Amino acid sequence: MVLPIDPCFEDIVAAAGRIAPYIRRTPVLVGDGDWSGIHFKCENLQAIGAFKARGACNAVFSLPERVAARGVVTHSSGNHAAALARAARLRGVPAYIVMPRGAPAIKRAAVEYWGGTVTECEPTLAAREAIAAALCERTGGVLVHPYDDPDVIAGQGTALLELTEEIAEPEIVLVPVGGGGLLAGTALTARARWPGARVIGVEPIGADDAARSWSSGVLQPQLAPATMADGLRGALSERTLRLARAQVDDIVTVSEDAIATAMRQVFERLKLVVEPSAAVPMAALLEGRVTGARAAMILSGGNVDLNQLPWVK
Amino acid sequence: MVLPIDPCFEDIVAAAGRIAPYIRRTPVLVGDGDWSGIHFKCENLQAIGAFKARGACNAVFSLPERVAARGVVTHSSGNHAAALARAARLRGVPAYIVMPRGAPAIKRAAVEYWGGTVTECEPTLAAREAIAAALCERTGGVLVHPYDDPDVIAGQGTALLELTEEIAEPEIVLVPVGGGGLLAGTALTARARWPGARVIGVEPIGADDAARSWSSGVLQPQLAPATMADGLRGALSERTLRLARAQVDDIVTVSEDAIATAMRQVFERLKLVVEPSAAVPMAALLEGRVTGARAAMILSGGNVDLNQLPWVK
Repeated sequence: MVLPIDPCFEDIVAAAGRIAPYIRRTPVLVGDGDWSGIHFKCENLQAIGAFKARGACNAVFSLPERVAARGVVTHSSGNHAAALARAARLRGVPAYIVMPRGAPAIKRAAVEYWGGTVTECEPTLAAREAIAAALCERTGGVLVHPYDDPDVIAGQGTALLELTEEIAEPEIVLVPVGGGGLLAGTALTARARWPGARVIGVEPIGADDAARSWSSGVLQPQLAPATMADGLRGALSERTLRLARAQVDDIVTVSEDAIATAMRQVFERLKLVVEPSAAVPMAALLEGRVTGARAAMILSGGNVDLNQLPWVK
Repeated sequence: MVLPIDPCFEDIVAAAGRIAPYIRRTPVLVGDGDWSGIHFKCENLQAIGAFKARGACNAVFSLPERVAARGVVTHSSGNHAAALARAARLRGVPAYIVMPRGAPAIKRAAVEYWGGTVTECEPTLAAREAIAAALCERTGGVLVHPYDDPDVIAGQGTALLELTEEIAEPEIVLVPVGGGGLLAGTALTARARWPGARVIGVEPIGADDAARSWSSGVLQPQLAPATMADGLRGALSERTLRLARAQVDDIVTVSEDAIATAMRQVFERLKLVVEPSAAVPMAALLEGRVTGARAAMILSGGNVDLNQLPWVK
């Protein structure tokens, strides 16, 4: 029986030590001109091109040897899948990844590059969960959920931990919200290290379950997410909602136009390739959904199809 | 009368101290997979999006106050223009920039953003030089040539100086070649700090004056450059040829296809926005024009029109 233990800041500090050999300490950029008060933690430059390497490594390397040896399982259409396949490869154990039909080719290729075994399923949450459960049953592998997992959340919190070691406390910390793992981990770190900063989650208006859940305090479904930010189509879990309610100051939403504009500006001004999800916090500043002269944000990932950039055609 | 004094390594060390307040210490990335032996000095993340900020700052801040006050002049279609406008703004003096008609809009906008005064001219070297000379005459400003200038060359050498402080000596150092300023500065630094490394210039086959000049020892004209690498269409000067002959181990050429492929791979694998010129050294590795398990290269700039990416349509 697994107790529903929530992670705390000490878990994040422990995670940072555990995963240090397996992840990159990513650079921090500061903007110029009207962006000169903004610091960007470049997790698009992280291994596998996204912060998800942190949580996956922490989960995999936290497992006892006998348990890890049976392998790990997850269902994910995105960066967590590649991150878990890589972490398993680094530990020398198998990874079984359930991906919905129609997942971006670049993301499936990344899983296979790291030696993960892909099983396709129907693109519904129920199908994903059922097939993952069957894989766990068959292989004896451990499910590593993309965000509803204390070790994953603790790992994600290490990105902000590094940032707090490099820059002074800002007024606001902006985080993209999908399932809420990065938000929860980041907020735990911010509360401990930057108690005066406001922590604000940002999500696409077309996938606003987190904003609705956070406001009402009751988990709201994400029925038909409609956003180019493919990393943010998931819904909070009871655990990530509980952590967000306890630790986060606000969750705001942004339009698709603002996401596309922010994404292009990050390419042009910062010379960084980011995926739409990573541009969502910048979109909140561009749309005036949040204000603060000194802001810090996590550029969550850079895995984007370069033939499908939103400003081309 | 100006003596034709060539820069030396001590000038590069002095330049590094002089320009430190005005430039960024750019991050260094290391590749993974089959790129795991390659280190990338990310000058695309430099101020104005290119290493040219270094040479321009060194030239402008080397001027005596009375001379600087009259302003600086250059002819450039590219990153040196923005870099000089910015350096002049930082010193509080005027910048007069001669640009050929048809220069990329993004590059003209950058000059104007930094307060530079743009004068258009016909797109020939003779027209550029004549108008720049007339501007110097009229304003009393000092010409800061994009590369045929010892202070500019010394400034460009500081990028590799930073890299030598961060990584072990590689087998090869790869540098894109246009007018040869970055090549000369980089080679001077490499000779002093990494005496065992081979320094190799790389240029597009459609703008191969440097390869021809370097091989023959006699300055060859660059009559009709044909390459997407707009930063590399210039020709060596007597000075940069002399320095290259003395310091550089080889100059190789690459195809346009390889440049486009390398550029896309840098976007996809490193998550960095680079201009075609910056991808030219990587193209040499992809085409097998150079070999070496441990390579270092300077990603020279990131100022590219995102509507004109070579792989789109």
